[in-house]
Amino acid sequence: MTNKKNKFPKNAKRVFKGEIHEVWQWPQKMFDGSVATFEMLKRPDTAVVIPVVGDKILILHQSQPNKPNFLSLAGGRCEPIEKPLNAAKRELLEETGYVSRDWKLWQRISPVGKIIWTVYTYIARDCLYWQPQRLDAGEKITTKLIGYDEFLQLADDQNFYERELIGYMLRARYDKKEYKKFHKLLFNN
Amino acid sequence: MTNKKNKFPKNAKRVFKGEIHEVWQWPQKMFDGSVATFEMLKRPDTAVVIPVVGDKILILHQSQPNKPNFLSLAGGRCEPIEKPLNAAKRELLEETGYVSRDWKLWQRISPVGKIIWTVYTYIARDCLYWQPQRLDAGEKITTKLIGYDEFLQLADDQNFYERELIGYMLRARYDKKEYKKFHKLLFNN
Repeated sequence: MTNKKNKFPKNAKRVFKGEIHEVWQWPQKMFDGSVATFEMLKRPDTAVVIPVVGDKILILHQSQPNKPNFLSLAGGRCEPIEKPLNAAKRELLEETGYVSRDWKLWQRISPVGKIIWTVYTYIARDCLYWQPQRLDAGEKITTKLIGYDEFLQLADDQNFYERELIGYMLRARYDKKEYKKFHKLLFNN
Repeated sequence: MTNKKNKFPKNAKRVFKGEIHEVWQWPQKMFDGSVATFEMLKRPDTAVVIPVVGDKILILHQSQPNKPNFLSLAGGRCEPIEKPLNAAKRELLEETGYVSRDWKLWQRISPVGKIIWTVYTYIARDCLYWQPQRLDAGEKITTKLIGYDEFLQLADDQNFYERELIGYMLRARYDKKEYKKFHKLLFNN
């Protein structure tokens, strides 16, 4: 599953660089020939991981400063020049202590219209526990293994963070063909 | 249907103000007592309208400079101090020429974690054609009336812009109870 990537026109200029976000602007010719200043943002891409452990999926209960607690998958921001797959492997290991040798890029989307920002979602099959978590000062994470049906139910949970997956989770829940297809993708059976 | 709103802590300061986006930062105490600079964005809220005309829903085919064409509902950015409902009424009239006397706030969500930005989705029942569209220099819009089932199918269309509605559209498509409930909400029968 892929999706078009947002991009700047060639004459866009960066007008601000913050801790995470950059602001870019350019003169845009309108349909009537007039010119307006258009603006878009750029932020580091995100890698998300669906970690499969046996017949279960590993989900995270997270606390972060200045946020209500939430449920999520493993994942985080790609470092500068870091490839999304490497970010996915790093975040899975740091946040959960698990590793996998069987990675599949499942979905690549740009969730917001005015932001150059791609979310790469990977499936990490046959994960193995390797070492204890190594968390940032801004993370508190506990992990939990849940079954396939329970995972699909998370689409209804307001505290579930991965909003861009909800369409697929609902299709799998309601449509038998999609249910089997997604199951096969995750568990290879 | 509502959702928690994102918000800044009180000591956040605006470090940049662009055409659309503002960048805010603050010193955030981490779990180990260290302090990091946290950053969030702010952008004008958005009003989205599901316009109901008889037993049909009005959708828009849009062209904008620097974007692939897309399908959407009516709607747009709230002006400074403009209330979301007034923005919804204004955008519906400007983009489609339709008016309604029967407005309902259906959903209020903050779609992106690091952005202070709320999308208000309204249902405008019993819309009437009032006057020709009045489009901005940055808009080309044609409208089309489609049936309920065709509307729910848009959840699968990659060019359908209103990503935050897809969960509800899928539930209505697959779950008979949700199908009837959403139909009643839109058409009052």
